[in-house]
Parts: sequence; structure tokens; C-alpha cells
Amino acid sequence: MPLHTDITLDFNNMLAERIGAQGIELREIEEMIPTLNQTTRGLADLRKLGQLPFQDLPYQEESLETILSKAGEIRSRFEAVLLIGTGGSSLGASCLQDSLADSRREFRLEICEDLHPLTWDRLARTLPPDKTFLIVVSKSGKTVETLASFLFFREWLLRHVGEMRYRRSVLFITDPRQGPLRQIAEREKIETLPVPPGVGGRFSVLSTVGLLPAACVGVEVGALLQGARRMDERLKREEVWVNPAMMSAALHYLIERKKGRRIRVIMPYDSRLRGYVSWFAQLWSESLGKKLNLKGEEVRCGITPVRAEGSIDQHSQLQLYLEGPRDKSVTFIACERAGASLRVPESYPEHPELAELGGKAVDELLRVERLATEAALTDAGCPNLTLLMKEINPHTIGQLLYLSEVETVLTGALYDIHPFDQPGVEKIKNYIKGLLGAKGYDSYRSLLQNRKKDPRFMI
Amino acid sequence: MPLHTDITLDFNNMLAERIGAQGIELREIEEMIPTLNQTTRGLADLRKLGQLPFQDLPYQEESLETILSKAGEIRSRFEAVLLIGTGGSSLGASCLQDSLADSRREFRLEICEDLHPLTWDRLARTLPPDKTFLIVVSKSGKTVETLASFLFFREWLLRHVGEMRYRRSVLFITDPRQGPLRQIAEREKIETLPVPPGVGGRFSVLSTVGLLPAACVGVEVGALLQGARRMDERLKREEVWVNPAMMSAALHYLIERKKGRRIRVIMPYDSRLRGYVSWFAQLWSESLGKKLNLKGEEVRCGITPVRAEGSIDQHSQLQLYLEGPRDKSVTFIACERAGASLRVPESYPEHPELAELGGKAVDELLRVERLATEAALTDAGCPNLTLLMKEINPHTIGQLLYLSEVETVLTGALYDIHPFDQPGVEKIKNYIKGLLGAKGYDSYRSLLQNRKKDPRFMI
Repeated sequence: MPLHTDITLDFNNMLAERIGAQGIELREIEEMIPTLNQTTRGLADLRKLGQLPFQDLPYQEESLETILSKAGEIRSRFEAVLLIGTGGSSLGASCLQDSLADSRREFRLEICEDLHPLTWDRLARTLPPDKTFLIVVSKSGKTVETLASFLFFREWLLRHVGEMRYRRSVLFITDPRQGPLRQIAEREKIETLPVPPGVGGRFSVLSTVGLLPAACVGVEVGALLQGARRMDERLKREEVWVNPAMMSAALHYLIERKKGRRIRVIMPYDSRLRGYVSWFAQLWSESLGKKLNLKGEEVRCGITPVRAEGSIDQHSQLQLYLEGPRDKSVTFIACERAGASLRVPESYPEHPELAELGGKAVDELLRVERLATEAALTDAGCPNLTLLMKEINPHTIGQLLYLSEVETVLTGALYDIHPFDQPGVEKIKNYIKGLLGAKGYDSYRSLLQNRKKDPRFMI
Repeated sequence: MPLHTDITLDFNNMLAERIGAQGIELREIEEMIPTLNQTTRGLADLRKLGQLPFQDLPYQEESLETILSKAGEIRSRFEAVLLIGTGGSSLGASCLQDSLADSRREFRLEICEDLHPLTWDRLARTLPPDKTFLIVVSKSGKTVETLASFLFFREWLLRHVGEMRYRRSVLFITDPRQGPLRQIAEREKIETLPVPPGVGGRFSVLSTVGLLPAACVGVEVGALLQGARRMDERLKREEVWVNPAMMSAALHYLIERKKGRRIRVIMPYDSRLRGYVSWFAQLWSESLGKKLNLKGEEVRCGITPVRAEGSIDQHSQLQLYLEGPRDKSVTFIACERAGASLRVPESYPEHPELAELGGKAVDELLRVERLATEAALTDAGCPNLTLLMKEINPHTIGQLLYLSEVETVLTGALYDIHPFDQPGVEKIKNYIKGLLGAKGYDSYRSLLQNRKKDPRFMI
């Protein structure tokens, strides 16, 4: 029986004994144990050497105090935070806000992560400039979208509140040593908090990057870290049959390698987990989508995450999952208690379709929808597993986030790839520089200019 | 040169002459011409026989008048519409609201498509009951989520405004003849509008289902239909080299059959198209995700749509698209004019990263991001195409929606599947009935009860 049951990984429906030929044999898991043990020990060694700093984040008591005190100050002086950041700089905060912030709260958190004049216009129109605190997050301090938005909202604040108050209404979260944001902060005496060294954006949710905005909307970030520590303890048991990170990594590795299922649908049955799904999709894609050179041969890894949501996508994507190509597995996430108890009123006894629903609790209906979907996928031989959460609170979300991070790193290790870099996207930055007319990037601009489109193929 | 340029399909980067071995040879397109012509003519014949009623929707002048008059009445008496529906009953309205409704408008449209007590609670708390009009959409009149939400908000209205006013605050859009909603409407004298016969949810955006909620938030639905008619004219040219629906269908068929690219990423560079992407994902998945029986052999079709968004997902999914498995194509959607012109303020001349951005228009930056991403994907040999829109307005969105529908049906015809049914999801309904304790569905309930989970596989 499980030691901890705040989150249970139910992988019955990944197994051949349940879903037949499309499933994984217990023998296949057994055969992986030596590799899994080696991998887990390798990661434990790296951690001891300080090479996996994201795993230390739950233990940073000192920075937690800084965060709480800063958030308290912001909450007392302002009514809203505008977070400017994108990718790893915004998805963590967005996940925490969606899952944990009380929707009845007064304090607003807006996240400016896309580059669109209508987004800027809406934010500038609806946020109170004299009551809005600006948090600008960019590790490198160079992200184009973030800098452009920063310049826009900086001017907006300067125009409305003046230079003096502007400086007390802004904070940068950036590299502790370098980058333009760091330099500007030093010269203009703008307050900063550091992105912890060695922690990439997609692993930064449990650092200042995710915690400060979350604390501003009243999320108990201490409990979040406590949850992460609890999961850390649980994951220290280096045995696949009791360790959900090892088991999930092994199952997704096997289902891809042995059955060619290169798509992983993430389908929570709880709208509070929308932000989590986008956060996880980045973590999983950027960490595992890698090109390797094995003895001169190019090998491409990666399992494509598909963001879905129950029950909505039953009416949109499920036909494809049930009858389309056998290239997917499905990860359900379920929450036993939905955070508010409401019942369907009893009415229309003469209509069975309505009478059946009367008196039912909404979370019971949601459970029925999920179990029916799970059953249909299982019948169709589609491997699926469920992360079952007792409820959604800071403690369980802390566990879920930490579990997802460790699972991702373990999966990367099974593929023998480096999960912490993103070499592919560097090239895009060069093209952007070229198109913006930056010095030294002319060759990229010319490359694009010489690559004329053939008008016959534009119809 | 293109006859119409409100929307241009640029497929340069799908071709081998551009991206190399991963692309499609012109010869392969040429070879498909007989099949394409046969398919197109077959569909034209079906249309003449009245078998493709979704293609007649843009020409329904009479129902347009009904919609406009009903919307006018709702706008004059209410301040908000609460639309209850899911899947094809909500995604069209959501797409039209996201892309075309003025974000400065006063009139609210809320869509209740998920089953969650917190969603119900938020809506009941923030909508003014005496100023809220309820639109309930379900073709069959039996959708569980929709009926449950209806019962809840019906009671909410009855409690706040009483029986008399409730009946003037609600409208059903359902089958013209049958189903529980139809029966209730007749008995209680509730106003109804019909879902046009033969038009399934995912093809209903240009009917009352999509148009009435859109008209309530001020969308010019007449111009939307005009755009659809214009696209219809354009698509009547039965020649693949000038017909974007035929070309896109052929390209996606070829890239899947010949290159095994079974994932289609849809990545607009305009946040107004978020709703469109979800609408398209349903259209594409449910229409094409099908199991066939060809001479006793099971064949599974379907290309999995992946919902993405530029520039945000550059910082989340792009690493995977660039270096991960060669199983994807990317569809960009770009808009030349972004609907508001804002510029990045000029500042910090001493920092090249910021100085480069100063003075640039936001839509220009968005274009730079997209072109750089396109270039990197093209360099990586990832097939990609771009739907280039002059601007986003009712006329162009009408074109886009109609183009997407025809393209989907054509693609289905190439795979020899029936694009209008969804046989796979029917089974889920039986399980739901069983779990809800409905009469006659005991066998489904027992099936689930007998399928006990093995606790060893719940960790």
C-alpha cells in the first residue's frame, strides 16, 4: 500500500494484463530495473555534487522569508501585480494562480506573456497605474518580448506616477550578475531578486520566479515548498514499484520505445489545472525534445505533450484518441474534492435525462465523466494512467510540481539526453537579431532576404 | 497571382525544393490531381443533393434576420448572455468572441462549457441574474454537462427573478423536433431556435449556434456570412494550384502518408485566434480521427492537432518542434495588421538589446518573431505553411472558418472516411448512463465494477 496518498499514481491501464497487446508487460518493467537504479543513483550523485539545484529549491528557507516579506509589502501598497515574462518566467506563476489563488480575492495578478498591441492596450486600460506593481522576469535579461513589454509599461508607469514612484513600483527577477536588466537595476537603483544560479526557467516555479507572484495573490507558498519536500522524501525510495516518478518515467519511456506512442495527452478533470498543463507541457517538451548524435547517427527524442481538458475535450478530441492512430497515451489528473460542493437541483422527474442528474454533486458528475472516458479508452486499448489527487491545495500542488520535475529529469536520463538545455531555440534568437537590424547579425538577415518566396506557392 | 488576397496560403516551406528530403515533391502533388478532382466533384455532387448542408449556411438570409432581431432584443433588455453548451455547441461562439468582439464592449458573454463547482459558483456570483439571458445549446438535448448546468442556472434564475421573467430570459437552441429540451420548451413555452438539420456541432459555427451569441456581443454576423460566401466562390475553382482548401488537404494528406507526420501544430501569431485554434482542433480531430475496416483489416486515420500560440510557445514547445522527432508539420496563421498600433518607446540607447526594440511597432515585432521561427523550422527541415490574413475582421474570419471546414471535409474524403460522424464517443455515453444509474445501462455499470483496480499498481 502507498505510504503517502495525497497523490496516487494509478497505472493499471498502462499494463498488458489490462489493455492487451498495446500495454506494457510487467516483465518489461522488471527488465528496466537495473537501468532505472543506475539512473536514479546517477542523479542522486549529481545532486550531492550540487548539479541539480532545482531539487534544493524546496529547502531555501531564507529566500522564502524574503519572498513573504516582499509579497506582504506589495500587497499592502498595491492592488495588482503585472508580471512581465514569458515561457519559464510566466508559466509557473500562471499555474500557481490558476490552481491556488482564491477566485474571490481582491488582489489582481495579470501576466503579460504575449506580444500583442491589444493585450498591452487592455492591460494599460484596466490596471490602475498608481496601484500596480511591475515584476519583470527574464533570466538572461534579454528576452525580446519581455524587454519590449517592459519598455511599454515602464513608460506607462512613468507617465502616470512619475519617476520617484515608478522606482518603488518595479522589481526585476533576473540573473544575479549579468544582463541588461541587471545593469539597469544597478544604475537606477531598482530592486531585484535573483534567479537561482543553475536553475533554468522551466525548473524555476519553486524559486522566487514562481513564488513571489503567487504569494502576492495569497497563495501559501510555505505549504507549497513543504509539499515539494514531502514528495522529495517519497521519491528517495529508489524502487520503481513504490516510486511514482521512476514508474511514470519508465512507463512513458517503454510505451514510446516499444509501442511507438510518441504523443502524451495530459487531460486533467479540473479546470484549476489548466495552468499546470501548460507549465508541464513546457517542462516536458523543452527537456526531452532533443537531437542526439550517437556514433555519427542522428537520433531524435521527445514525446509531444498534448494539452487537453476534461470533460470539455470529450466533445472535441476524444473521437481521435479512441479511433485514431495508436500513437498516444493519456495522463488523466483527477481531484477527489472539487473545492466547493454544489448539487444539481432536482427537477423534471418525467425526463429521465434530467431526472438522473438531479441531486448529484458536481464533482461526482465530473468523476463519472472521467471514469467513463477512462473505460472507453481502456476498451480501445489506449494506454492511460491517472494521477489521483485528494484535493487541490498548496501542499498537494507542491507535491505535483516536484513529482513532474523529477519524472521529467528521470525520463531524460533514460533517453540519455541533457534535460536542462534548449540548444534548438538559440538559432531563432539569431534570426530575430538579424531581422531587428542588430549589429553582427547581417548574415541572418541576408539569409532570409535571399530566400525569396515563390509566388506560385502562395495562393 | 491570387484572385483574392484577404487570406493567402503560403506553402513554399512544405515543398522539397525548399526544405529538402522532408518536403513534398511537386510531382507528388501533380500525381494527386486525378484523385483530388474526383473527390472535389464527388463533394460538389453531394452538395447539389443537399447532403452537405453546412455549405448552405452562409446563404441563409432568413435565419440571419431572425438572429439579428433576437440579438437586438437581448442586447436591449439584458447586459450579459450566459451560453451553456460544450464542444460544437460552445467552441464556435468562443472563437467568434475571441477574434471579433471588441474587448472594450460593455455587454458580457460567458460560456459555461465545463462541469466544475467553482465555475458555476464564479458565474453565479458575478453575473447579474436580472440582467442575464440564458442560451442553452444542445443538438440532442441530452448532453449531460449541458443539462446539469442548465438545471443549476435555471434554479438560480428562478430564485432571483421568478417564474415569469425566467421564461423571458432563456432560449434553447436544439433539434427542431426531438429531445428533452425540445419537449420542455413546448410545454413551458420557452423560446427556441433550431440547429439546422444535418449540421453537426463542429460544422455549426455559421448557424444560429455560433451566430446568435456572436451577434449579442456586437459581431457583424452578416459580414461573417458574406466572407464565407466569398470563400465559397473562391473554392469553386476546382484546380489544386489555385484552391487553398484542395492544396492544404493534399499537402497534409501527403505529408502524413509519405513522411509519417501525424501531428499538425496550429500556431497563430495573434492572441485573438486562440478560440479559433480550439474550434479548429475539434473540427479536425472529430472529423478525421476514424477507424476504417478495409477488406477485413483495421485502418486508423487521423492527424493530431496540437494547439500552440506564437510567440509564447517559442519559449515552450519550439525546442521539441526543432529537434524532436520528425513527426510534425506546423501551420502558422499570421495577421498583417494587429488591430491597434502601438510602438515600443525608445529608451536606453546604451543597451543594444533595448535600443534595437525602441520605436518598433508591436505587430512588426510579432512578424519578426514569426519569420525567425519559420526560418528556424525551415532550416531544420520541418514542413510548415502559413495562412496569411490581411487583417482580422468578420469578413476574413468568415473566410477562414469556411476554408477550414471545406479543407477538413476534403481531407476526410482523401482518406475515404466519413467526416460527419463520431462513432467512437457514443460508447462513453453508455458508460456515463451506467454510472449515473440509468435504467437499461446496468451492464455498463457492472462492467466497470468488475474491472477492479489492482492496488499494487496504484502507488
